[in-house]
Amino acid sequence: MNAAIVGGTGYGAVELIRLLKQHPSIQLNSVISKSQSGTLIQEAYPHLQDIYSHTMDEYDIHTLGEETDLVFFATPAGVSKDLVSGCLDKGITCVDLSGDFRLTGDGLYETWYKKSPPEKSVQKKATYGLTEIYRKEIKETSLISNPGCYPTATLLALMPLFKTNWAKEGGIVIDGKSGVSGAGRGMSLNTHFSETNESLKAYKPGTHQHIPEIEQFLNTVSEEEVTVTFTPHLVPMTRGLLCTISVEMKEYQTTKDVISYYEDFYKNDPFVRIRPEGKIPATKEVYGSNFCDIGFYSDKRTGRLTIVSAIDNLGKGAAGQAIQNVNVMNGWEETAGLGQVPVYP
Amino acid sequence: MNAAIVGGTGYGAVELIRLLKQHPSIQLNSVISKSQSGTLIQEAYPHLQDIYSHTMDEYDIHTLGEETDLVFFATPAGVSKDLVSGCLDKGITCVDLSGDFRLTGDGLYETWYKKSPPEKSVQKKATYGLTEIYRKEIKETSLISNPGCYPTATLLALMPLFKTNWAKEGGIVIDGKSGVSGAGRGMSLNTHFSETNESLKAYKPGTHQHIPEIEQFLNTVSEEEVTVTFTPHLVPMTRGLLCTISVEMKEYQTTKDVISYYEDFYKNDPFVRIRPEGKIPATKEVYGSNFCDIGFYSDKRTGRLTIVSAIDNLGKGAAGQAIQNVNVMNGWEETAGLGQVPVYP
Amino acid sequence: MNAAIVGGTGYGAVELIRLLKQHPSIQLNSVISKSQSGTLIQEAYPHLQDIYSHTMDEYDIHTLGEETDLVFFATPAGVSKDLVSGCLDKGITCVDLSGDFRLTGDGLYETWYKKSPPEKSVQKKATYGLTEIYRKEIKETSLISNPGCYPTATLLALMPLFKTNWAKEGGIVIDGKSGVSGAGRGMSLNTHFSETNESLKAYKPGTHQHIPEIEQFLNTVSEEEVTVTFTPHLVPMTRGLLCTISVEMKEYQTTKDVISYYEDFYKNDPFVRIRPEGKIPATKEVYGSNFCDIGFYSDKRTGRLTIVSAIDNLGKGAAGQAIQNVNVMNGWEETAGLGQVPVYP
Amino acid sequence: MNAAIVGGTGYGAVELIRLLKQHPSIQLNSVISKSQSGTLIQEAYPHLQDIYSHTMDEYDIHTLGEETDLVFFATPAGVSKDLVSGCLDKGITCVDLSGDFRLTGDGLYETWYKKSPPEKSVQKKATYGLTEIYRKEIKETSLISNPGCYPTATLLALMPLFKTNWAKEGGIVIDGKSGVSGAGRGMSLNTHFSETNESLKAYKPGTHQHIPEIEQFLNTVSEEEVTVTFTPHLVPMTRGLLCTISVEMKEYQTTKDVISYYEDFYKNDPFVRIRPEGKIPATKEVYGSNFCDIGFYSDKRTGRLTIVSAIDNLGKGAAGQAIQNVNVMNGWEETAGLGQVPVYP
Repeated sequence: MNAAIVGGTGYGAVELIRLLKQHPSIQLNSVISKSQSGTLIQEAYPHLQDIYSHTMDEYDIHTLGEETDLVFFATPAGVSKDLVSGCLDKGITCVDLSGDFRLTGDGLYETWYKKSPPEKSVQKKATYGLTEIYRKEIKETSLISNPGCYPTATLLALMPLFKTNWAKEGGIVIDGKSGVSGAGRGMSLNTHFSETNESLKAYKPGTHQHIPEIEQFLNTVSEEEVTVTFTPHLVPMTRGLLCTISVEMKEYQTTKDVISYYEDFYKNDPFVRIRPEGKIPATKEVYGSNFCDIGFYSDKRTGRLTIVSAIDNLGKGAAGQAIQNVNVMNGWEETAGLGQVPVYP
Repeated sequence: MNAAIVGGTGYGAVELIRLLKQHPSIQLNSVISKSQSGTLIQEAYPHLQDIYSHTMDEYDIHTLGEETDLVFFATPAGVSKDLVSGCLDKGITCVDLSGDFRLTGDGLYETWYKKSPPEKSVQKKATYGLTEIYRKEIKETSLISNPGCYPTATLLALMPLFKTNWAKEGGIVIDGKSGVSGAGRGMSLNTHFSETNESLKAYKPGTHQHIPEIEQFLNTVSEEEVTVTFTPHLVPMTRGLLCTISVEMKEYQTTKDVISYYEDFYKNDPFVRIRPEGKIPATKEVYGSNFCDIGFYSDKRTGRLTIVSAIDNLGKGAAGQAIQNVNVMNGWEETAGLGQVPVYP
Repeated sequence: MNAAIVGGTGYGAVELIRLLKQHPSIQLNSVISKSQSGTLIQEAYPHLQDIYSHTMDEYDIHTLGEETDLVFFATPAGVSKDLVSGCLDKGITCVDLSGDFRLTGDGLYETWYKKSPPEKSVQKKATYGLTEIYRKEIKETSLISNPGCYPTATLLALMPLFKTNWAKEGGIVIDGKSGVSGAGRGMSLNTHFSETNESLKAYKPGTHQHIPEIEQFLNTVSEEEVTVTFTPHLVPMTRGLLCTISVEMKEYQTTKDVISYYEDFYKNDPFVRIRPEGKIPATKEVYGSNFCDIGFYSDKRTGRLTIVSAIDNLGKGAAGQAIQNVNVMNGWEETAGLGQVPVYP
Repeated sequence: MNAAIVGGTGYGAVELIRLLKQHPSIQLNSVISKSQSGTLIQEAYPHLQDIYSHTMDEYDIHTLGEETDLVFFATPAGVSKDLVSGCLDKGITCVDLSGDFRLTGDGLYETWYKKSPPEKSVQKKATYGLTEIYRKEIKETSLISNPGCYPTATLLALMPLFKTNWAKEGGIVIDGKSGVSGAGRGMSLNTHFSETNESLKAYKPGTHQHIPEIEQFLNTVSEEEVTVTFTPHLVPMTRGLLCTISVEMKEYQTTKDVISYYEDFYKNDPFVRIRPEGKIPATKEVYGSNFCDIGFYSDKRTGRLTIVSAIDNLGKGAAGQAIQNVNVMNGWEETAGLGQVPVYP
C-alpha cells in the first residue's frame, strides 16, 4: 500500500516517517509540505539522511489519485477539512491527525477552534479513531479522525468507568501534562528552550479545544451529562503526556477491583497496559512506543478514584494510533509496524 | 543574631546558607552535620568555596547554648522532634523545616509519618509558619513549624477562599508538581538523572504526608469538614513547585471578582503576587525567590474555579519562608535578606 | 539463535533487550542478574511489562551451556574476564560490552582499570568489535570485545585519517561529552538529577580508561606513536555522545576533500553517515539508533581539522554495535534488528 | 547614580535588571526597547511583576542626557556602535555588552561580524572590560567594551599562562560549551526546546566571532603569534558556560605548581576561584553568580595542560562583569551588588 503524508515538516509527520519505516505493508512514497516542497527531507530533518532521500512534494490531488492509496494529514487545524473530500473521491483512504473532524455537535468546532467547520457530508463519513473503543466502526470507514493526545489518554482511562456506571458525572477533574513536542515545531516563547526548561506552566485552563472532544465521547456512554474540568500543562521534556484524573465514585470500589475490571476490559488490547496495584506509570515507560499505561488509586477516605494514564504524545497520541487505525482498517495485525519497545532510559 | 543550621548536607540547609549570606541581621556561625562533621562545607558543596570556609560541626547543645540565638532544623522527619526542646530550654529560637510539628491532631503524625510523635508539651509551643496567614501568632512564638512545600502553595491559594466561604468543602482536587530537589540530595531511582529526565510521574496518590497538613489548616476556616484529593508529581526540573487546584464554588464568581478579592486579601503581603486575569504563573517566574504567584480561572460552564500557585520549593517552600518567619519574629523588615529577584531565564 | 544477557539490571542490558525484540534471528531466553535473580524484569523496568515477562536468572554455566548459543556480558569492568572462558568452553559465542578485553598491551589493564587482567590465553581470543574497521576479523572470532562508547566515536572519526597518513601524531585533542546514561544506573552524586541537571562538568581529565583504548588502535595504523589528550564531560541529557576532535594536519586539505575521502572510506557501511560540508551532527540526530554521524571543518587559518562525531552511547556505543557484531559473526544482514530510525524529536 | 538599559527585552538586559535591584549605588530609571516601548516590563517578563513596574521607553538621547549617568547597551551586534558616541558627548558613561568595540585590528570587525565597523575615534575610547586583567585601564575610561562570554572564560584561563611564558603559542584547542540562553531570546530551531533538549551540538567550528577576540588579547602578552582552534557547542541547559582548553606546555609543570601560580595571580580577585588539585568546576557551581571557577590537570604523559573554566554566561559572561566594571570605574567596592551566592542546586 502506497502512502503519503501531508504536513511533512511537523513532528506528527516526522514520527509517521519513523514508524512507517518499520511497517511491513505500507510504502511511503510522498511527503508533502506546502512551505518546503522541492527541498530534501534531510534538509529539514538531518536525522533522516540516508533513510529518506526524497524531496518534499507539493500537494497535488491528481498525482495522489494515481499513486497513493492512503493519506495521512499531519496538518494544523483547518487544513484537512478542505482537502479530505477530494481524496475520498479518488478512493484514497484518509487519516486525519488534526482536530478537524473530531467534534460532531452543532457549532462545537466553530466555538472551540474558531474556524468554519468541515462540510456536514464529509463530517458524517469520519470515524473517531480511538482504536480500543471504536475498533468495529474503524474497520468500516475510509476516513479516520484520529483522536487528540489528551483525549486519547483521558478517554482510555475514563470510557470503561462510564460504561460500567461507576463514576458520578459531575466533578471530573483532569490535570493534563504534555512534553513540549506537543506544541509542534513552530516557534514561540512557549517552545523556546530558555523559557521552558526548568519551568512548569499551566495554560488555557478551561478553554482548551480538547475539552469538548473529551466530553462528547464520555457522553455517548454516561447516564447523565458529563462536563469536565481540564487544565493542560507544559512540562520541560520533549515527549510524553500524562493525565491525572480524579473521579467521584457512585460507590467506593477497591483499587484491586477497579484494576480487575480494567484488565478484563482491555484484555484483548495489545497497547493498553494496566498497572498492578501500587504502581503508577511514568511517561518514560512509554517513550517512543504506542502504549497507553494506566494506574489507579481508589481512596476510601475521599470516595474518589485517581487514574493516571501515560502515553507518548507523538506515538499513541498521534502517529502511532494513526497507524494502528490503518492496521485495523486493512485487517492487518493491529501491532504491525508498532512493535517498538519503549526507549528506556 | 547568631544562627546555626542543623542538617548541613541537605538542600534545605544549602539554600539557607545562600539566603543568609545576604541577610543584614543574621550571622551564620555553625553548620551542623551528623554525617560529615569535621569536613569543609566546600567538600560537600564546591560552589561555596571562598564563601563559607568553615568545617561542619557536630550537634552539641552546650556549644549551641553559648554561641547561638537561632537554630534552623533542616533535617529529615523524625530528627528535630527530639532536639528542639533542649534548644528552647537554652533560650534558643527554633525554626523547624521538617514535618515534625505540623500535625496537631491525635494520632495524625503517627499515621502519616509512621513515627512516634513529639512530646505534647513541646508540640504545643509550635506555631505554624505560614507567614501571611499566621503573622500575628508567629510574632509571639519561639518555635516555628515551617510549612511543607505543597501545603504552602496550596494553603496560600485556598485559605482566602474558605475564609470568604465561597468554596464547597467537598471535591477539592489538588494536583501538585515538584522539581526533583524536593526529594532531597539522597540517592534513589527517583532522583537518578537518567530515570527522571524526560519523564513525568505521579507518586503516592492519596497517601502523601502533606494531605493532613493541608486539611488541618483548611478546617480551621471552613464551615464543614474538608477533605482533599491530592496527587503529587515529580517533574524533570530541579527547582519549582506548582499546584493546580480545582474547587467547586458555592456560587459562580467571575475570574475578575476572584482576583479582586485575592488582591485585597494579600495587599500587604510582599511575597504573594496575584496575577492579572488571563495570566497563569510558571515556576520559572519565582525561581530562586521567596514569591508565591497565584493565577485564576473561574469557569462558568462547570461552576469550578481553577487556581494555579507557583513557588520555589526551596524558597517560599522551605528556606525562604523560614527566614521570612524569623524576620517577623524579630520585628525586622519582613523582606530582610529576601530581596532576590527571580533568576530568569 | 538463543541468547542470554548477563548484567540484566544495567542500561546496557535493557538496551539489548529493546533491540533484540526486533531482531529476526535472535531469541532472548535468559536475562541474568546477580542482585535481582528471581524477580520479574518488569519490577526493575516497568516499561517492559507485557513485553518480557520473565524472571531474572542466576548465572549458571551448565544451564547456559545447554540452552544458549550467545551471551552478551553487559557487566561492569572486572566481571566478564573470569566468566568468558567457561562460556567459550561450552561453545557459546561471547560478546563482552565491558572493558575487560580491550587493552592488549602489557600492564595496561592493571594501570587504567586498577584490576588484575584476564588470562592471556583468553585475551588472545578476543577481537575488538569496531565493526567498520575490523569486520573481517569479527567474522572469524567467537569472543567480541565490544568497544567503549568514547573510543567508538573517536576511532570511527580518526582511523581513516591515520590510514591515509594526513594527521600529525602529536597534538590530538579529544573533547568527549556524554549523556548521563553512560554512567549507568548506579547511584552517585554524578547521576543525581539535581546535581547534574542544568550543569555541565568535565571529569577525569587525562585519566579516563578510554584513553589507552583510543591510542592502542590508532597506533596500529599511525606511522609514529600517537598520544591523545582526552577530556570527558557529563552533559545534562540522558542519551547521546559527541566527540569533538582537533587534529593538526600534515598538510592542509579542504573540508570538501576530507569529506570525499571519508564518504569513500565508509561507502559500504550502513551505520556511518558522513555529513555534507557545512553540516555538523547533533546527538539527537542519532538518538536510539545505531548510527555514527560525522561532520568536518578544515581550517586553513590554523592548519587544523575539526571532526565532530555523534553516536547514541547506548546504541552504536554499546548494545547496537554488539548486535551489529553478532550479525557480522553470523553472516546475517549487518542491519538485522538495527533498522530503528532515530527518535526525533 | 541613574542608569538606563538599552535592549530591554533580551536576556542580557533582564539579568542586569536582576542584579541592579541589589546594587547599593545604582538606580535603574529606564529600560529601553525599540520593539516594545510603551509596554510594561512585566508583560515581557512576568517574573518582574511588583519588582519593576515601569513601561519600557524609546531610545531618546535628550532624555538620556538629562536623566542618566550610565547606559548599558545589551543590544545585538551592530546597534551600539552608532549610539555610543552620542551618549559620550552628553557625558554619559557607557558599557557595551555587544561585540561592537571588542576588535581593534584593521578589518577584523568587518570580517567576523560582517558589518561596517564603529568610527575609529569612538573605537579608540573603548576599554576592554576583562576586569581582572585590565582593572587599571578600566578605572580611567568612560566606555567599556564588555567581553564576550567565551572570551571571558578563556582569557581568564589563559592570560596568566601566557604572561608567565609557559605555553606554546601553537596548538591551543578550546572547546566551548554554552547553555542556550547564550543564544538569546530570539526564536530559531537552535533555541527551540524540542530540537535542543536531549541534544548536544557543535556549531560554527572555526568561524565564531569570539575567535579573533580571544586571539587579539592573548597576542598582547604572548611572545609569538597565537592562533586558537575554537569550537563552540550548544548544551541542553539554560545557563552556564564551560571552556575546556588544551595547551601544549613549553616545559612540564606539575598541576600543583600551576595551581599555586594561578592562586597567586588571582589572589586579589574576589570573583576568580582557583580549584584545588583534583577538583574540576561544574557550571552549576557558578549559577547565577559572578564567579569564574578554574580547574587544572597537567598531564606529564602528553606534556599538555588542560584548563577548565566555568562561568554563568549571563553573569560573569555578561551582566555581572558589566556591573563589576562599573564598580571599578567608580571606585566602589568591586563586589557591590554582586554578592549573590551561586544558586545550588
